[in-house]
Amino acid sequence: MRIAQIAPLFESVPPRRYGGTERVVHWLTEALVEAGHEVTLFASGDSTTSAHLIPMVPRAQRFVANFEANNAPYARMLELVARQAHAFDVLHFHIDFAPFALFSRLGAPFLTTLHGRMDQDWVPAIYDLFADVPLVSVSKSQQLPMPHLRWAGTVHHGMPLDTLRPQGAAEGYLAFLGRISPEKGIADAVAIARATGRRLRVAAKIGAEDAAYCEDVVRPLFEDPLVDYIGEIDDAGKPAFLSGAAALLFPIAWPEPFGLVMIEAMACGTPVIAYPHGSVHEVIEPGLTGLIVPDLAAAIVAVPRAAAMDRAAIRARFEARWSAGRMAQDYVEIYESLVSSR
Amino acid sequence: MRIAQIAPLFESVPPRRYGGTERVVHWLTEALVEAGHEVTLFASGDSTTSAHLIPMVPRAQRFVANFEANNAPYARMLELVARQAHAFDVLHFHIDFAPFALFSRLGAPFLTTLHGRMDQDWVPAIYDLFADVPLVSVSKSQQLPMPHLRWAGTVHHGMPLDTLRPQGAAEGYLAFLGRISPEKGIADAVAIARATGRRLRVAAKIGAEDAAYCEDVVRPLFEDPLVDYIGEIDDAGKPAFLSGAAALLFPIAWPEPFGLVMIEAMACGTPVIAYPHGSVHEVIEPGLTGLIVPDLAAAIVAVPRAAAMDRAAIRARFEARWSAGRMAQDYVEIYESLVSSR
Repeated sequence: MRIAQIAPLFESVPPRRYGGTERVVHWLTEALVEAGHEVTLFASGDSTTSAHLIPMVPRAQRFVANFEANNAPYARMLELVARQAHAFDVLHFHIDFAPFALFSRLGAPFLTTLHGRMDQDWVPAIYDLFADVPLVSVSKSQQLPMPHLRWAGTVHHGMPLDTLRPQGAAEGYLAFLGRISPEKGIADAVAIARATGRRLRVAAKIGAEDAAYCEDVVRPLFEDPLVDYIGEIDDAGKPAFLSGAAALLFPIAWPEPFGLVMIEAMACGTPVIAYPHGSVHEVIEPGLTGLIVPDLAAAIVAVPRAAAMDRAAIRARFEARWSAGRMAQDYVEIYESLVSSR
Repeated sequence: MRIAQIAPLFESVPPRRYGGTERVVHWLTEALVEAGHEVTLFASGDSTTSAHLIPMVPRAQRFVANFEANNAPYARMLELVARQAHAFDVLHFHIDFAPFALFSRLGAPFLTTLHGRMDQDWVPAIYDLFADVPLVSVSKSQQLPMPHLRWAGTVHHGMPLDTLRPQGAAEGYLAFLGRISPEKGIADAVAIARATGRRLRVAAKIGAEDAAYCEDVVRPLFEDPLVDYIGEIDDAGKPAFLSGAAALLFPIAWPEPFGLVMIEAMACGTPVIAYPHGSVHEVIEPGLTGLIVPDLAAAIVAVPRAAAMDRAAIRARFEARWSAGRMAQDYVEIYESLVSSR
């Protein structure tokens, strides 16, 4: 198929560091090319891809405090995609509701994967206007706040089998990977480490929006000698970091739309101990790739059980369920049904 | 005519305090209704209008640090306007480039007044894509960085004759009204006051983006006993503030697209001393409504000459040239030519 992937412009594809959406767009694009499709990627000019890159801005530009300056590259992208829309069999957008008004009037098949949470207060007013626009969720749970929209399907994320591989033996520590914020559960992660007497290694970004929380709540927690904060890490640092862990802690307190870090852990053969929010029930197979626990007390009890799990089996399950090839195949099925239903 | 006015949503129409675009949309809307047109205003629900208000959000929402939350109300507005576009003879947008991609494909006559500066670095990439979209500038000078766009005309702002009127006798002080920022020239205003020994009364907003400049540069200047900073004022406070001034100082250092404060001064019979940037040559008639001076030295020399100007003649000139009725008439001519040229 002739497929256009339309990515956000705040990060390159793939992103330099943090940026879940752009990582997934990258993996999907590469897997579609690998599967023999003719793929065009609309993204920032500093992106790296096997597809045909059409640069929308010279370099990815972080969000700035100016409404027009943020929007101009997106408005330009929508216009440029619209002008060549009919050169593609399907247009696959990753920029939320931005294309809906224009592309629902153009007649070219288009699809939008929603990467964010759908329970925010501004969501219904805009999404309820577009009940006919085909959407893909990244987990079934992501659909729950807006079940009446036109969900063309759920496609769980997948990643290349080679990006992360098990490396060396587990060292018994617990791992926390991601953003440090209340909803990601860093405080419970520290509590789990303390209660089990295990070291907690934290590889995480501190966002500007969470600076006050980090200063007031997290900094005192990190004074515990069991906690080892190593800052933000990239893909090169992840195999050693994750493979060395007895378990990845994922004690989230929000409706996580997908949670890439769970499958990153599985890629390294590392079990995940998670709270049952958002996508968790869809991603973790209890007893096979991790344990789902209702609260802190249960998480503490789960640690030795997780540490004893079969890591080769976790990696095998990752390869069977969480590859980028499987994700690409899922999307192609949706693309084909979208095209044939017209 | 059946006219739709589509306003920004970051402030109500009219705005509570600062907000030039929403003030002008308000004045234009009222004048069009007054002239017998059937006007519909798409704006925040806390707006006040004689037109038919279609609320787009319950209350105006200031810019927040979230791309989607900022954009959702605008995306919704564009969709709702598009759905009823053909119920209007003309759609008049005041939200920059946001409507271009969608409405250039809909076939309904539409027009966009640009309220901002066109010399910013992000402007060409988006506006050059839309060379056929009809635009109105608020001064001829505003067009200069982008002369090749489709300018349907220039419509200078106008305001209701009754909003501000001369009140009491001039007291000899100099006035500064607007935002405190480098480009608005507050430092030169203080220097003019010092050199002439006159009091400088400053009625101005300090924006978050200018906090560092205010702390480092402006605060020391304001320690001068000649300077009297009275904070932000509303329309009720302006007649006394402006009428009491020997002159309004407008020593700008940027391409001001229009500069409402100049005509607000004229409405009170107060002459304006301005540097020759942006719209200044189009708004001030030297010797009649103010003086245009090239630099600080010339501004100092100009103060006594300005103070001696005929204030009744300034008010008369304001009534002749700067009324909202004249602005509305100018726009109706452009609306009609837009409709008849189709």
